[in-house]
Amino acid sequence: MEGQVADYIPELAKADPRHFGICIATRDGHVYEVGDTRQSFTIQSISKAINYGLALEDRGEEHVLSRIGVEPSGEAFNAISLKEGTGAPFNPMINAGAIATSGQVLKKDGQSRIDRVVEYLSGFAGRPLQINQTIYRSESETGHRNRAIGWLLRNFGIIDEDPDEILETYFQQCSVEVTCRDLALMGATLANQGVHPITKKRAIAADYVDNVLGVMATCGMYDWSGEWIYRVGLPAKSGVGGGILAVLPGQLGIGVFSPPLDSQGNSFRGIKVCMDLSRELALHMLNPTATPLSAVRLAYQGGEVVARRRLPPSTRELLRQHGPSIQVIELQGGLTFTTIEPVIRQAANLAAEGSKHLIFDLRAVVSANSVSFILLANLSTRLAEQGVNIAFCQPGKTMTMLRSIGIPARQIFATLDAALEACEDALLLEVTGSSWRPETPLSLRSCSLFRTCTDEDIAFITEQLQLRRYAGGETMIPAGDIADEMFVLIQGTVEVQISAGENDCKRVDVLTAGMAVGEMAFLDGSPRSANVVAMETVECIVITKDWFRSLDQVRPTLKILLLQEMTREISARLRQANLEISALQRA
Amino acid sequence: MEGQVADYIPELAKADPRHFGICIATRDGHVYEVGDTRQSFTIQSISKAINYGLALEDRGEEHVLSRIGVEPSGEAFNAISLKEGTGAPFNPMINAGAIATSGQVLKKDGQSRIDRVVEYLSGFAGRPLQINQTIYRSESETGHRNRAIGWLLRNFGIIDEDPDEILETYFQQCSVEVTCRDLALMGATLANQGVHPITKKRAIAADYVDNVLGVMATCGMYDWSGEWIYRVGLPAKSGVGGGILAVLPGQLGIGVFSPPLDSQGNSFRGIKVCMDLSRELALHMLNPTATPLSAVRLAYQGGEVVARRRLPPSTRELLRQHGPSIQVIELQGGLTFTTIEPVIRQAANLAAEGSKHLIFDLRAVVSANSVSFILLANLSTRLAEQGVNIAFCQPGKTMTMLRSIGIPARQIFATLDAALEACEDALLLEVTGSSWRPETPLSLRSCSLFRTCTDEDIAFITEQLQLRRYAGGETMIPAGDIADEMFVLIQGTVEVQISAGENDCKRVDVLTAGMAVGEMAFLDGSPRSANVVAMETVECIVITKDWFRSLDQVRPTLKILLLQEMTREISARLRQANLEISALQRA
Repeated sequence: MEGQVADYIPELAKADPRHFGICIATRDGHVYEVGDTRQSFTIQSISKAINYGLALEDRGEEHVLSRIGVEPSGEAFNAISLKEGTGAPFNPMINAGAIATSGQVLKKDGQSRIDRVVEYLSGFAGRPLQINQTIYRSESETGHRNRAIGWLLRNFGIIDEDPDEILETYFQQCSVEVTCRDLALMGATLANQGVHPITKKRAIAADYVDNVLGVMATCGMYDWSGEWIYRVGLPAKSGVGGGILAVLPGQLGIGVFSPPLDSQGNSFRGIKVCMDLSRELALHMLNPTATPLSAVRLAYQGGEVVARRRLPPSTRELLRQHGPSIQVIELQGGLTFTTIEPVIRQAANLAAEGSKHLIFDLRAVVSANSVSFILLANLSTRLAEQGVNIAFCQPGKTMTMLRSIGIPARQIFATLDAALEACEDALLLEVTGSSWRPETPLSLRSCSLFRTCTDEDIAFITEQLQLRRYAGGETMIPAGDIADEMFVLIQGTVEVQISAGENDCKRVDVLTAGMAVGEMAFLDGSPRSANVVAMETVECIVITKDWFRSLDQVRPTLKILLLQEMTREISARLRQANLEISALQRA
Repeated sequence: MEGQVADYIPELAKADPRHFGICIATRDGHVYEVGDTRQSFTIQSISKAINYGLALEDRGEEHVLSRIGVEPSGEAFNAISLKEGTGAPFNPMINAGAIATSGQVLKKDGQSRIDRVVEYLSGFAGRPLQINQTIYRSESETGHRNRAIGWLLRNFGIIDEDPDEILETYFQQCSVEVTCRDLALMGATLANQGVHPITKKRAIAADYVDNVLGVMATCGMYDWSGEWIYRVGLPAKSGVGGGILAVLPGQLGIGVFSPPLDSQGNSFRGIKVCMDLSRELALHMLNPTATPLSAVRLAYQGGEVVARRRLPPSTRELLRQHGPSIQVIELQGGLTFTTIEPVIRQAANLAAEGSKHLIFDLRAVVSANSVSFILLANLSTRLAEQGVNIAFCQPGKTMTMLRSIGIPARQIFATLDAALEACEDALLLEVTGSSWRPETPLSLRSCSLFRTCTDEDIAFITEQLQLRRYAGGETMIPAGDIADEMFVLIQGTVEVQISAGENDCKRVDVLTAGMAVGEMAFLDGSPRSANVVAMETVECIVITKDWFRSLDQVRPTLKILLLQEMTREISARLRQANLEISALQRA
């Protein structure tokens, strides 16, 4: 086996060189592990990277940068490397910088520095970590060079107090015990904008994640950092305990543990494993094999997908003709400059081609940064000036953001259906100059089911059939019932609803005066699939199964006529549904 | 204005300090620009980064690494910084490393070094670039320190010939004229795996993109490189001409031009612009605000979405019952380890829950790296051992990859429809032990339209209606026709097809013996919406409009019965379509 176990203190030299563990933790907390991933070892220099985050949180970026640089030194980890003039260590990954970093950590809330450091590291691991006291004592007893560094830092005013306590903090911090699995989860926490993927607790302020990863990227692997980024392409930090922690930003964390070290002080097998993983799994962050796409999940136009409501045949036809004036853009994934920028272009093109209503469906958006919403807000303002109306629907978690960029409530809809309905109504009004809603109460002749009836048929129906009235809110048809009646609406609006969870229901259809209600189950004998509820006072003609059956003998021509009208209507709905399926299955 | 225009040669000192341009180029070649983005200036040190790619292509990574390191030196750009012992320059971004890099470029195919360098740079810019001869002469006349470096490199054997010609190449390469827009497109080319986003020509082998970006990330901004990654988080290179080229890997390129330089030799305003852009547009590569998600676009089960064919009612019911045994997973975007890994988990869970047929729909996949397909291949093998069948459909560009990982042709389907059909047939066979296809020719009574007829009705139909035969391939109904007939299939299979482009057609339905054909247009009088083609010898009963109308008088009870059956069938199709829409609209 190549490489040598660290032996600058006797305790480290006792490490078993055969230990070997590899672990990958994903951003959603799934952990893949093989080998000795639950074996404890001391974190050593890997603590430098994490602890840098604590110093930033305690003191702020500018204070910390004024004391400790972030430039690679091109020198070994224990080189003293202080900048001429200021005496600031080159970066927080060399010993001088790491000791200076520990010195920036505040004693706070009755906690000592080391208590706070251990608690901070534990947040990244997602479990309480412990100090290995034997190794700590050994580190402390032999840490003469580090004591020299501490006094130099004191000399230059990089630390504000005598270094003894800071040095003990540093020795203890390096002696914290972790496992390979801990390292992978610490990495996944950094990949996950600072939130531990399993405990879901924030370990580091989101703003400082890039700073910690930044110093890992340029200085994490001692004087092999350049080659590491060149070959492996992952911000990483190694420790002389044999651990390596690597991060694919935004994606995953890797932990490797194998004690034998190479001449730069990095785990020999750890380096090889990371090189292999990066190549085999294509993880090099600088040449991603897949790149973010436009956030558009699906785009279709009005008329293809329509609001869940029944329209009179002539209105349906108008909507199909003028449909392209409404465009629905369904967004998905994470909205960032790169994913939203092509959406802005696409929307501007649609407007230039004459569309007057753009609906952004936000249902499948999982995250959005502020720049993406600023771009959407600018688009909305710009298109409004061109007379184009923008609607947002199903905002979910992005609701706060929509309101914060100044999108007025009237442009935001809870459901796609509501947005489509508003746009369709506006479009139909533009096209016809009047509402498509019929003036009620209607005559029987104006109801589509009866439109081809003879005068005698109408008289017959008027005489034979009962008129029924429902109050607003009343359930006209309960789901599950046997379908022994159907209705023709003379006045009022009804909703077809299916239950969606405990106390909620989802509207699947809306019918207005002139339309037949419940004819499908009525005709095919299946139980009612949904509730039908009166939205306001409703008047309707009731067709009973018995009466309908009696027509076979009494008035077969009327029955034929009614069946033909019902079939025509169901066929029209099937054609619309097929159009919608085509639109939804489009690539 | 802060900063000083470079004045080490008189020609550079003539630059107009007021020039200022900012440009962003996206991976798909859209360019945003503001200010003096078309103003020419000399590329200077930015050429070092690009030219490093040419040296790698000419000599290979190991050769180049043996001559030129990739470690940040922590020193200024003109420091001599050669490694003790080997004399290798620390990295290709300092002058020593850049001259050594130029020395690795081969004279080839009758072209001089500088011709090849200019051609290479031009590939990145997407247009032929020129050398500014005045600046070149000025660089050459004053390049004494660089000549000293050249001779030191010669002394250490880093370059194999006397340095004169190599130095002239270097001076000329630095004097190539570019614009701010060129820089942004060069950056976009690196972001786009080495392919120029507009010319679509490859400028650099994909394998070397991460190497070029690697040295830019760690050494691109002279001795401010660490702070640059810390604050801006984009691999970048600056030049004393006032240009900065920055790259967000996989996403976009940025070019900035402003001649006044800071004390490190970086464009003063360029740095500020990049810091602002990175913060305002959230471009820091180490803390992405959106992260890759599972590649699953949509998942649904058999019975929800079904093959585009008509099944007998009882078969349809069986399929709905056993549907969850078939699972369709629609993938999208770029497949990588990170996006495919959750898919593998999801598929394994579905199999564990009892699904026996998994269909991966690849239609919306835009790219896939080999690791993602290796994981899919492993999944396929593992699940096959558990008796689960995996099918892939609509592979498009990924077809070659599917075959290369050893997926047999029988598991690959051109359309989702074909995959669904195969899985449904296999499932129905498992469930019933026999084919659902009826034995033909059928009696009239076995046809669903006639199933409730009385014996007298059947006799009446047999006597009155004509039997017609079509040969396989014959068009039974041409799209656009007036619908004055409908058919009931006694024997054979027909397809409903709509034309899809010039000489292609898409199957939208398949009907087998026992089913009614063309009843919708027949009933509602609309023109035929699709072609109906006999797939084999077909025998059918022909129902004409005249005969159907005559029933009103002659045999109204039969007409009522037929209308009820047709309505029942159309209603069943509408219910299925609604189920499918629900599945397709699921979040």
